[in-house]
Amino acid sequence: MRQSIEILERTPVVLQNLLEGLSTEWTLSNEGGESWSAYDVIGHLIHGDKTDWLARAELMLSEDVEKKFQPFDRFAQFENSKGKTLKQLLDEFKEIRNANIIRLGAMNISEQDLGKKGVHPTFGEVTLSQLLSTWVVHDLDHISQIARVMAKQYKKEVGPWVEFLKILKQ
Amino acid sequence: MRQSIEILERTPVVLQNLLEGLSTEWTLSNEGGESWSAYDVIGHLIHGDKTDWLARAELMLSEDVEKKFQPFDRFAQFENSKGKTLKQLLDEFKEIRNANIIRLGAMNISEQDLGKKGVHPTFGEVTLSQLLSTWVVHDLDHISQIARVMAKQYKKEVGPWVEFLKILKQ
Repeated sequence: MRQSIEILERTPVVLQNLLEGLSTEWTLSNEGGESWSAYDVIGHLIHGDKTDWLARAELMLSEDVEKKFQPFDRFAQFENSKGKTLKQLLDEFKEIRNANIIRLGAMNISEQDLGKKGVHPTFGEVTLSQLLSTWVVHDLDHISQIARVMAKQYKKEVGPWVEFLKILKQ
Repeated sequence: MRQSIEILERTPVVLQNLLEGLSTEWTLSNEGGESWSAYDVIGHLIHGDKTDWLARAELMLSEDVEKKFQPFDRFAQFENSKGKTLKQLLDEFKEIRNANIIRLGAMNISEQDLGKKGVHPTFGEVTLSQLLSTWVVHDLDHISQIARVMAKQYKKEVGPWVEFLKILKQ
């Protein structure tokens, strides 16, 4: 728990330092096609923090007999982020994440609670421990993705060095 | 140039926010075998800033007829980082990078200079523009790598979600 919170609580600041004040060439460009820009990713993280991670954790700890998770909408950000600047999204993410860290602490999750179960729409039974670990890895996955999306904007510019830069081949 | 500096100047702060104060389980673990931990990567970035990027740029702008790059030692950090804490390395990286940004500014690189050439030990002729772009992508590559190395520490913990987390499959 402690090690997970170490990551979860710093993600908004990492993303703010990585993105705030950058030219839109870095933040609004994607990897082509239907892929996401850094701006899209921040909206996705906000939606997860608003509707998904803690709602699922609370369901797992509740007395509800069903414990079936709501499916997560991976495309909600395209509607929700409309008209907002990247700075607004970064601030919104920081606010909801900080509130969620406090909420998570107040849940007083015990060692025993971590084994409690819920039903994922795709995987079936999962534990609270798996959910919280996935929240952490999901943050790191999107930090890594944002760095990759930005790197790809220079794919041609690096010339022959493309050979040595693994990030450009992913 | 301006867009490249936007990234180069923020990398030390991003890494500091991502790593400072984390448990060593996050910062000293690697992806297995000879792979690098976050700690190793910071040492590698310091060595590049100390010996490689600007030395090559200056050679390309010089009157030197040969303009052959020194090969870069990708393993120097294993010696140079010995006995240092991660915090010391993060501070050292911030210091050398800030100094390098100032040095880069003082070089007053013109549009024409960006086409100047040097000879890479593997690729042969490369331009200054390609070198500077590679410096930027190299930063982003290692930010992405650090997020991935940390994510992999939870590969088992996420249970069935491993299916949805691309970062765990790289």
